[in-house]
Amino acid sequence: MKKTALYLSLSAVLLGSSGAYADVDVKALERRITELEKKLQTSEEEDKQASASSYFEFHAYARAGILADQDFNGAVGTGPYMTPAGQLGAPVGRLGLEDDNYLEIKLERWAVAEDGSWSRFKVMIADSVESNNDWTADDSKLNVREVYAELGNLSSFSGMFDQSSLWAGKRFDRNNYDIHFFDSDVIFLAGAGAGINNVQISKDWKTNVSVYGRDFGTVDDSTMDIENYIVNVNNYFGPHWQLMLSAMKANDHKQEGANLADAGSHVMLAYHTDFEEGFAKVGVIAGQGLGAEAKLIGARGNLTEDAKTVRLFTYGVTRISDSWRIAPAIMAETSQDRFQAGDEYQWATFNLRLANELTKNFEMVYEASYQYMDLDDTIEAASGDFYKFTLAPTFKMNTKAGFFDRPEIRLLASYIDWSDELNGFGVDSDNFALTNFDDGGQFLFGAQMEIWF
Amino acid sequence: MKKTALYLSLSAVLLGSSGAYADVDVKALERRITELEKKLQTSEEEDKQASASSYFEFHAYARAGILADQDFNGAVGTGPYMTPAGQLGAPVGRLGLEDDNYLEIKLERWAVAEDGSWSRFKVMIADSVESNNDWTADDSKLNVREVYAELGNLSSFSGMFDQSSLWAGKRFDRNNYDIHFFDSDVIFLAGAGAGINNVQISKDWKTNVSVYGRDFGTVDDSTMDIENYIVNVNNYFGPHWQLMLSAMKANDHKQEGANLADAGSHVMLAYHTDFEEGFAKVGVIAGQGLGAEAKLIGARGNLTEDAKTVRLFTYGVTRISDSWRIAPAIMAETSQDRFQAGDEYQWATFNLRLANELTKNFEMVYEASYQYMDLDDTIEAASGDFYKFTLAPTFKMNTKAGFFDRPEIRLLASYIDWSDELNGFGVDSDNFALTNFDDGGQFLFGAQMEIWF
Amino acid sequence: MKKTALYLSLSAVLLGSSGAYADVDVKALERRITELEKKLQTSEEEDKQASASSYFEFHAYARAGILADQDFNGAVGTGPYMTPAGQLGAPVGRLGLEDDNYLEIKLERWAVAEDGSWSRFKVMIADSVESNNDWTADDSKLNVREVYAELGNLSSFSGMFDQSSLWAGKRFDRNNYDIHFFDSDVIFLAGAGAGINNVQISKDWKTNVSVYGRDFGTVDDSTMDIENYIVNVNNYFGPHWQLMLSAMKANDHKQEGANLADAGSHVMLAYHTDFEEGFAKVGVIAGQGLGAEAKLIGARGNLTEDAKTVRLFTYGVTRISDSWRIAPAIMAETSQDRFQAGDEYQWATFNLRLANELTKNFEMVYEASYQYMDLDDTIEAASGDFYKFTLAPTFKMNTKAGFFDRPEIRLLASYIDWSDELNGFGVDSDNFALTNFDDGGQFLFGAQMEIWF
Repeated sequence: MKKTALYLSLSAVLLGSSGAYADVDVKALERRITELEKKLQTSEEEDKQASASSYFEFHAYARAGILADQDFNGAVGTGPYMTPAGQLGAPVGRLGLEDDNYLEIKLERWAVAEDGSWSRFKVMIADSVESNNDWTADDSKLNVREVYAELGNLSSFSGMFDQSSLWAGKRFDRNNYDIHFFDSDVIFLAGAGAGINNVQISKDWKTNVSVYGRDFGTVDDSTMDIENYIVNVNNYFGPHWQLMLSAMKANDHKQEGANLADAGSHVMLAYHTDFEEGFAKVGVIAGQGLGAEAKLIGARGNLTEDAKTVRLFTYGVTRISDSWRIAPAIMAETSQDRFQAGDEYQWATFNLRLANELTKNFEMVYEASYQYMDLDDTIEAASGDFYKFTLAPTFKMNTKAGFFDRPEIRLLASYIDWSDELNGFGVDSDNFALTNFDDGGQFLFGAQMEIWF
Repeated sequence: MKKTALYLSLSAVLLGSSGAYADVDVKALERRITELEKKLQTSEEEDKQASASSYFEFHAYARAGILADQDFNGAVGTGPYMTPAGQLGAPVGRLGLEDDNYLEIKLERWAVAEDGSWSRFKVMIADSVESNNDWTADDSKLNVREVYAELGNLSSFSGMFDQSSLWAGKRFDRNNYDIHFFDSDVIFLAGAGAGINNVQISKDWKTNVSVYGRDFGTVDDSTMDIENYIVNVNNYFGPHWQLMLSAMKANDHKQEGANLADAGSHVMLAYHTDFEEGFAKVGVIAGQGLGAEAKLIGARGNLTEDAKTVRLFTYGVTRISDSWRIAPAIMAETSQDRFQAGDEYQWATFNLRLANELTKNFEMVYEASYQYMDLDDTIEAASGDFYKFTLAPTFKMNTKAGFFDRPEIRLLASYIDWSDELNGFGVDSDNFALTNFDDGGQFLFGAQMEIWF
Repeated sequence: MKKTALYLSLSAVLLGSSGAYADVDVKALERRITELEKKLQTSEEEDKQASASSYFEFHAYARAGILADQDFNGAVGTGPYMTPAGQLGAPVGRLGLEDDNYLEIKLERWAVAEDGSWSRFKVMIADSVESNNDWTADDSKLNVREVYAELGNLSSFSGMFDQSSLWAGKRFDRNNYDIHFFDSDVIFLAGAGAGINNVQISKDWKTNVSVYGRDFGTVDDSTMDIENYIVNVNNYFGPHWQLMLSAMKANDHKQEGANLADAGSHVMLAYHTDFEEGFAKVGVIAGQGLGAEAKLIGARGNLTEDAKTVRLFTYGVTRISDSWRIAPAIMAETSQDRFQAGDEYQWATFNLRLANELTKNFEMVYEASYQYMDLDDTIEAASGDFYKFTLAPTFKMNTKAGFFDRPEIRLLASYIDWSDELNGFGVDSDNFALTNFDDGGQFLFGAQMEIWF
């Protein structure tokens, strides 16, 4: 009896479990599993190969919309550089002043090799038109602003060059950064040239060395093509400090005017810091001769050999409560003997953008901007202020994503006013050209989108 | 004996089925299956994430080719708007008349968030050159026609706005549609502005509200930028009916001419229907003042304050047998006091395109077009007709895919003729400018590709 | 005892193997395997569908950088066509002479159908600016050089047309090829038109037939648009031989000048061969009348009816040792009665580019170039030579990948000199226009990137 029981129980167990597969061929199951594993591995290898060869990236910056004055005519001459000091590069807060449709299309192609080395190609085409119309062939400013290549992580490079990358072509410098609210780069180093990025000189000291060429034009009645060559050394110390040095020479530039500078130097010292809910930057720029153009390094040829400029900047963004964010920005400059001996220009701009997040997709944005300027071009002198207040109900994908999340679709209402003394300043000067700075106290209304990615 | 038989049979059963897996570790199989399931799920999540972040889309419209007259000189002045009435927007059938190389490049970037909300960016660059040559820098009309952003499915939006989307920038209105065979939009609403699409007012009533700005130019000797602002409300009732209303105002436009309109209104009522093998649309458009430009809403500034226009359209496509498709189209218009008091224009165009599908990749396409026009610009008056017949052997990927499948590669042969009375009409007028309407009875020959995607 | 042993051993076996799955539901395992197989199949089908529908491709050619003379002014008038004979299409070696920023952006869209037929759309936009500056709207030459569509592998096509493809639009001919080192196509057939590629006439004979239209401009005081139509038959015999025949007619072209050619013919015979470490090509071109422009077939209208040209070319690339590569190239031409009766031009260029691979990412490249020219335009005559030597330290992803691997980032140093007799040749002629051929013996320095993909 015991044996039978054993047999029966054994078979019960075995039949019980085999009842589940009495008709299943497990060897066939194993073959099917092996087949699936092979397929999934091939698929993973193909994906890896596809991403280990080359790929395309599309990026852009764009703003477009409508802006009208209180008479429902199109706003004329407005923008962050609308004041007389704007001709010197002095911006005011941009929100609610922009009537242009500006676009940058950026096409990039990356290639990555088996050994991890990579190459990158970028072309950027830009356009700027004021017109609201859909056919603007006569006004079109389409042009190629960047076309360059980079090589990086080359296996031949080691030591301090281990993480370096080379570049050549025409480009905006890789380390340029801007104060967005002013539509002003802090430094705009750009042109054709070549350079090396990310040279790790020591544990805390990383540097970038570049040569840029800029064109100053052809000397009249000749074919001499005057170029300004800038050597730029951009150093980073630890996570915070930046020291940028530039020296430049434009041979034969004095053939265009005996007082023109044909050389120059430029230096910037800056401090960058991040905190939990934002970041801040502060710095000082100084330049002489051709280096007296503080932002567009080496791009201005109409400077005297004695020109001197000092510029300060600071800005940051942070959250100040659950639903309020704040972005203050200051830029100020003093210069002497800029375009001719004896001229003196001083200006300072204070800007504050505030965002009050009301829902996930809607925030009320405020911007207050004040600029003081004291201008003396040796022919006329004027001083005074400009101020602007803007209200911008703003729609976006996620208000919690901060000041730099785009796209933004905004309604705009601004009030601008300025000192009468500034009206018509420099209208007869080569260095100042204004279209509408003749009567303050205006309202502006509009709608705009801004995007970058 | 019985027990042995039982044992043996049991073991036979068990060994028989286990013989298939006596050496297979099923627990190991289960581990391998679990592993595969994890891998496949990760892969799906990556795909979903990749598609749930952002992606690029490339679209375009283009036509290019050669067109010669019977002397084997290049065709001059031909095209769907070649008749005198063409200056009023009166088209004839386009097939076999086009000598231009026209291109629209459309780059789009979509971003989709976890909560299903999305943003869309589009830029469209266009060019139009007649030249056959490969370097056309001097003739190039490259310009940015659209640059705008949209936001949709925002979680903050609910109720009638639940499926709405916002837009701002410069664009062709989302709801524009055209009669392809005429190269004429029924409505071409475009410019810079902002709006909201898909507001579901009630179960059967969906609306779209937009504001567009157009530029009329600057008043001479001033910087006053005259703009025309159009408020457009585009309503859909059920699946068939469309009622579009537009009101517009161009402040200070009378400074350009005392008789010019500085305001206007425009209305369109249309009926859309689909059937099994095609679709049809019919509608009427009426406008006054600045609204008297029937198609390019608010884009024409040279209209008088008394201008009145009524336009009719109807077209459709359908199959009429296994290998024949038909696409009839009619457009007609009457207007008064358009450019000046007392002018009167009437025209009507009848077009028929037929396709005879001969193989999967080849069809013979025929187009017959007739236009009657009666024109009186108060200085001269003329009336007469224009007709065209075109034969177009056409290659495509799949003739069964219908009239709107592209690309098409075509050979072209056309015969055009018109009433002598129309020769030279309006050649001295600001509003009419013709290059070759001086001698009818011509043959045209060519080859062309057309594509969109 | 024996039975017990049998039972026990049986159960040991069965329990042993079933112990591994006593608690595993194998039927459930089978269900999970079936589920995985379905998922993987769906994924493969989606991939196949995605790749069997349509896709985008981004390609480009670009070069950009800086080039200065020994006075550190911008190089003026340099480039591969800088010599007087350059105006006739006679190139010298390009390396170290290029000061332009030239770009071609190529956007392609492919569509593939279930039956294997495909369509292809390509648009190419190009720009060329000398300026180093980042905003070049006033100099921009952006223009659309190609916009065309192709259809291939159509199921309706069989027999000799089985692998054929059709095209129409504006394009560079599919079979154009160049001598890269000269920046000179051997044949540059381009314009608007239509054609068929890959007609397999017999086992060893493949042909391509195209019609291209070129524009010669409008006859003064008329609207007559003179076009040159070229019929081109491009034959390949076996893997090596190519025979290209072109006939062209430009009706009414004599209205622009009684001596101008209004017809022409052009023939090229070429031999192509590949070997293990490179390839070589050699050929001869002959043309008369409008066909006397050897390279830009049918693109030049300023040729006399008696014009005759013969051109020879040969070039190749190969490896000559583990770390040296060599690329010799020769082009030579003789012509008579080209622009007017009695003119005679002869020139020959010899070029040698050498690469010495020093590391995986760095090679030293040398280029030596010599051109002899003998020019007589019936007003002046001059003969002499030009020579150039260039040193180009070059960085790239993989030096072993050969002469045509890009991107390359190069430093450049060149020395150029020429016979004094050539100075100022043709400066007063319509057919010759030189900006700087007035004083030989110059050094040029620069940096450049070149890329294509």
